[in-house]
Amino acid sequence: MEFILLLVSSLLLTARAAASNPVLDVDGNELRRGHLYYASSVRRPGGGLTLAAPNASCPLNVAQAPFYDYSGRPLAFFPENADDDTVQEGSTLYIMFPEPTACPQSTVWTLDREAGFVTTGGTTSSAIGPHNSRFAIRKAGDAYQVKVCPCSTGVHQGSCRMGCVGSLGLIKAGESVLLGTNSERPHTIMFVKVKQATATR
Amino acid sequence: MEFILLLVSSLLLTARAAASNPVLDVDGNELRRGHLYYASSVRRPGGGLTLAAPNASCPLNVAQAPFYDYSGRPLAFFPENADDDTVQEGSTLYIMFPEPTACPQSTVWTLDREAGFVTTGGTTSSAIGPHNSRFAIRKAGDAYQVKVCPCSTGVHQGSCRMGCVGSLGLIKAGESVLLGTNSERPHTIMFVKVKQATATR
Repeated sequence: MEFILLLVSSLLLTARAAASNPVLDVDGNELRRGHLYYASSVRRPGGGLTLAAPNASCPLNVAQAPFYDYSGRPLAFFPENADDDTVQEGSTLYIMFPEPTACPQSTVWTLDREAGFVTTGGTTSSAIGPHNSRFAIRKAGDAYQVKVCPCSTGVHQGSCRMGCVGSLGLIKAGESVLLGTNSERPHTIMFVKVKQATATR
Repeated sequence: MEFILLLVSSLLLTARAAASNPVLDVDGNELRRGHLYYASSVRRPGGGLTLAAPNASCPLNVAQAPFYDYSGRPLAFFPENADDDTVQEGSTLYIMFPEPTACPQSTVWTLDREAGFVTTGGTTSSAIGPHNSRFAIRKAGDAYQVKVCPCSTGVHQGSCRMGCVGSLGLIKAGESVLLGTNSERPHTIMFVKVKQATATR
């Protein structure tokens, strides 16, 4: 009986610790809600993340920045749990390029499930059930990967109970290198804080 | 002849001065590209600007914040002239609420010309000609008003040559107070820098 209690409390502690691990930037500081970061590639050479229009149409795709735009565009992270001011490993969040574009869609990431690519046009819609704009950040060695998590984690009341369904990786598509579901070769990134508190260059 | 030269150079100087007047926040600092500000109402009582769904549908409307959300939501300003890192009086810019919403449209302001209201879904589309997402900030006493400017001003090559076509004001619509074209009673605002460099609370 004592052993079971010990096991349960140890499991609870582990779960709590896991739930409260903040995601850190390259300087070791916690990722904060709405602040600006570049998602720098761990693999060299390789640029940060940006927006691309591989078919010259809207919505835009999330893509790896070409060599002449090495940092990519600033990103902001918004934990789904409104009480979280910092980004926690494994908790669902919304990811956004906080700047205007030539397209009418929101610059919030969403997974186009049919095509398997991450595009713009995401929402925080509170509809119950799976949701294509929910992602989570998981540690991978000293860096991080982005998981596709249609159901909320780390919020007080989850919208559904399915686990995360894979990881995002880079996929070559013509001239572009697009972000999409690629669990076999997840894209590994580090977060570099944008020095000026500005959304663009 | 001398008089004409003097007049011309004086006019040129005036034009230059007018073109390079930075918009200031309530602390007297220049408004910077992509930084976060509340658009506080000069008239009291009156909240800042926020997003509202008066018909419980998308796209959202830009509206005055109700009394329980006094500051409203942070806004970011993006001068159309990519070289401008600060907001200049009278130069066209894009205005954005840099945070995710429940709607798939961008959170960039655009004028719904038929209804006369400012909604989300704006773009920086580089199509030649008038454009519903271009606005400009003009001084009004010690504060500022927002003008509707379909054609670019303050950029190297304007897209068209029409002047600004009116000002934005508040319009009561049911329970909501929406932002729309109301040149007879323009809404007068001040810019309050968001202390934390964060897009949401």
